[in-house]
Amino acid sequence: MDEFDFIKKIKQKYYYQSNLEKGIGDDAAVFNHSNGSLVTAVDMFVEDVHFSQQTMSPWDIGYKSLAANLSDMAAMGAIPKYYLVAISIPKLLPKTKAKEIFYGMKSLANKYKIDLIGGDTVSGEQLTISITIIGQINKHVRYRHLAKENDIVFVTGTLGDSVAGLYILKNSHTEYIEQAYFIKRHQQPMPRVNFANALSEIPRIALNDISDGIANEATEIAEASNVSLHLKAKNIPIRKSLLQFKDEQRFKWTYFGGEDFELLGTVSRDNWQKIQKIAGRTNTQITEVGTVSNKNPGKVFLYNEEKLPILLEKDGYTHLQ
Amino acid sequence: MDEFDFIKKIKQKYYYQSNLEKGIGDDAAVFNHSNGSLVTAVDMFVEDVHFSQQTMSPWDIGYKSLAANLSDMAAMGAIPKYYLVAISIPKLLPKTKAKEIFYGMKSLANKYKIDLIGGDTVSGEQLTISITIIGQINKHVRYRHLAKENDIVFVTGTLGDSVAGLYILKNSHTEYIEQAYFIKRHQQPMPRVNFANALSEIPRIALNDISDGIANEATEIAEASNVSLHLKAKNIPIRKSLLQFKDEQRFKWTYFGGEDFELLGTVSRDNWQKIQKIAGRTNTQITEVGTVSNKNPGKVFLYNEEKLPILLEKDGYTHLQ
Repeated sequence: MDEFDFIKKIKQKYYYQSNLEKGIGDDAAVFNHSNGSLVTAVDMFVEDVHFSQQTMSPWDIGYKSLAANLSDMAAMGAIPKYYLVAISIPKLLPKTKAKEIFYGMKSLANKYKIDLIGGDTVSGEQLTISITIIGQINKHVRYRHLAKENDIVFVTGTLGDSVAGLYILKNSHTEYIEQAYFIKRHQQPMPRVNFANALSEIPRIALNDISDGIANEATEIAEASNVSLHLKAKNIPIRKSLLQFKDEQRFKWTYFGGEDFELLGTVSRDNWQKIQKIAGRTNTQITEVGTVSNKNPGKVFLYNEEKLPILLEKDGYTHLQ
Repeated sequence: MDEFDFIKKIKQKYYYQSNLEKGIGDDAAVFNHSNGSLVTAVDMFVEDVHFSQQTMSPWDIGYKSLAANLSDMAAMGAIPKYYLVAISIPKLLPKTKAKEIFYGMKSLANKYKIDLIGGDTVSGEQLTISITIIGQINKHVRYRHLAKENDIVFVTGTLGDSVAGLYILKNSHTEYIEQAYFIKRHQQPMPRVNFANALSEIPRIALNDISDGIANEATEIAEASNVSLHLKAKNIPIRKSLLQFKDEQRFKWTYFGGEDFELLGTVSRDNWQKIQKIAGRTNTQITEVGTVSNKNPGKVFLYNEEKLPILLEKDGYTHLQ
């Protein structure tokens, strides 16, 4: 594949950002940024490790790769502005499919008015996509080290849907309730960019996006903030129809299932009502799921009907005794 | 490989940039940038496509990947500041080798005082490295569309060395004159960052880095600037010991050989003396190799002893008649 031709084909005809001085077409992109902080992150997605063409179309693969990056921007309280894509395309992948990957990205990019300003298309053996995103802080940075004692812990949307969708895709001989919903949550997750940005009037929020399961993200907040998080199992939001699956699956998907791209946050009790109002305004489901304490820093406890909580760890749990 | 652990190991203990608010350790890096334009580019390198472990050590692979990005910054007239690395590592690659890749990058990063502020380490089948670089314009942007009629065309260093080095590495049964020199030029090229930045007092320069051979880069300048470039074959700078190779090889390597990471530029005659002085000050070999004309826009002509010039194209040439 002629990489230069390919880049030209997917190049935008116009750019959204007025601060962009030069997009694709020179050795690098140039943009002016006169005030405020910038935010940047990179993510890499490898075929048969992070996604499969058995369960995702090329369009979905592009869409979801960018969605994961936008979710990082949401988790920082940033407005996404620019992205750069490096992609290694197997020679045997038809050109139309390669283009579909970019169209999937573009569709999401247009929704959030962000610009593709750099790219590198190479050929390799394994489809590999690396996206760098650049955004601008919307007033306050939402670091995960900002949780404080007595904060309320909250979660957007419902958890476990994405892995449920993947399960349904892999077990297509069976019919499932609301299977289109779960599949869409897996293939085309919606990052919480608008909600995160609507929170800008609130001075302090600790925020993480749920890309690796709430157990992992909650532990990251607990560790970074030197606090413990105490979650109530019965409050953890799940889609009602998730109840069609076995308890064991549901538990695994809800706490350790990745790629829901919801937000997990902590905020002072004083601002909880404000956040609920913003959630209403932005059409965002939001649920209070727990509290923050200074005791047992770095730990996350999950309370259910049993007397003693479970200690949730990044990729597992321990029954306390 | 536990990707989180790995990132922690290579995380810098301190950062060079005082404007950096948060490096590695949250969903994204945050930096403040109060004035001037920012520049960013991405490059991807795939094993057995862009490099081979037969001819490059893991350390060299890391070093050279970052060098290619720094060369893009030089070509834009930018001071490199930050970089982000996404890397797909085969499970069978020993951990020590994976770390060596980062040490190679770090060595060059330390030389130019740039900070690693983001990363994603995943496992895949084919070693794949994607680097995003962010820099700051040093007064003037050096777009390739800035060439003007009567400009002098210049080149830094010598051309064809990198491919000669690769040839030597692949034909190690033979002894070559200055073979260590050529091999080093292939494995550890030195991007012309310092020279490019020392040019900041000169208001207009068109600049490209020679990553794909001078024929390609000159054509890019000619096309972007809507001018023609006229190069004198006898002035194109080569290492004397390149003469040990056959005419045909030498011609191919000099005009179409990639990865020398020298700079090709055009500048008004009035500023030529100034540039020569700056080259002297920064210990940079610089050679006048041709001129710019408004006739035949988009074309590059190479003059040798024959009456009619050769039309140099991006990946070949045509004899004019």
